[in-house]
Amino acid sequence: MSAPGTTPGTARPGGRTARTAVAVFAATIGELASRSYDDISIESIAARAGVHKTTIYRRWRTKAELVSQAVTDAARSLIPVPDTGSVEADLRGLSRSVMATLSSPEGNATTRSLLAGATASAQIRQLMQQFWTARLTATAAIVERAVGRGELPAGTDPAPVLQAMAAPLYYRLLVTGDQLTQRDADLSAAAAAAAARAGVFAGQPGMV
Amino acid sequence: MSAPGTTPGTARPGGRTARTAVAVFAATIGELASRSYDDISIESIAARAGVHKTTIYRRWRTKAELVSQAVTDAARSLIPVPDTGSVEADLRGLSRSVMATLSSPEGNATTRSLLAGATASAQIRQLMQQFWTARLTATAAIVERAVGRGELPAGTDPAPVLQAMAAPLYYRLLVTGDQLTQRDADLSAAAAAAAARAGVFAGQPGMV
Repeated sequence: MSAPGTTPGTARPGGRTARTAVAVFAATIGELASRSYDDISIESIAARAGVHKTTIYRRWRTKAELVSQAVTDAARSLIPVPDTGSVEADLRGLSRSVMATLSSPEGNATTRSLLAGATASAQIRQLMQQFWTARLTATAAIVERAVGRGELPAGTDPAPVLQAMAAPLYYRLLVTGDQLTQRDADLSAAAAAAAARAGVFAGQPGMV
Repeated sequence: MSAPGTTPGTARPGGRTARTAVAVFAATIGELASRSYDDISIESIAARAGVHKTTIYRRWRTKAELVSQAVTDAARSLIPVPDTGSVEADLRGLSRSVMATLSSPEGNATTRSLLAGATASAQIRQLMQQFWTARLTATAAIVERAVGRGELPAGTDPAPVLQAMAAPLYYRLLVTGDQLTQRDADLSAAAAAAAARAGVFAGQPGMV
């Protein structure tokens, strides 16, 4: 997936700079998965990545900046955007990917750690919003292509469709604490598609 | 609203025991809204409520038990279950109540504090699941009445309908950090109703 905001210095895949970024991002995610946001530092990330802390400081000025880029990078590589020719299948594929990420021990721990960080820090909140905006830009194509094919009403707003698909998964993970299953993923994808088809997200408030 | 699991000792409204429970629950919510779950104690709640800590220990053995009952009590009194005769209007009314609670400074802080507590403590996670089960029991009536009126397909499962309504509000609050508006509440209610109407939650996977 190509998306805006590629990390400076990672443009040459396979180069030393790119390899360092991969190691530092992996160490950042590892740190996030193993303790709270407050308890990690550029120093602890450097130690885990096996690089000197000045190597990190040269490219990322703050912990918040590094964490934001590492998470954005992880989300981009872990969660591909399907293009099957059917909005239902696309949403179902995306929903299952989100579920798989949230269900993995590392994805679960990282999500919780990061959201706790967002509660404590306005800077992390702002970076998280940038992350979600970038994520939405990439996944909106699912809805836009469906409108183009005539599967969804003209004027369907991608953001609430994608939120209707993803939100029940985060809700189960973070609020009710229930286990996530593939059935949950398929159900929230089907519900988002049905509501979009009914025109709920196209400024056609037939339900209101 | 009458719901199972009423706190022992609060059966006589207006009595001294009931007044103590009201004061202790209010102090518990106040504590949750002002600092983290880990940082509050039976002692700090007693001090805020203006009662002796033994008064609390006589009725609630642990902080987790008291917090669980205080939150359940708050949710019951703050969020009434509408019965308008229309599933869309009922879901919209409930959705707006959830939105108003989550948007208030106290509701927002309490929700975040409690979910952070749930991350840290298996006991709080278990109590939160009891809370959500009780909450679902109360609100399922909206869906059951709609099935009875023929508004929704027979066999519609209440839980995913209510989750489809509530989840996008929690998602915006906890994950993307966006402001919650009445339009968000109305949109998630309309989407849940449309998906339910289409049979998505009735084991009629027409979308899959």
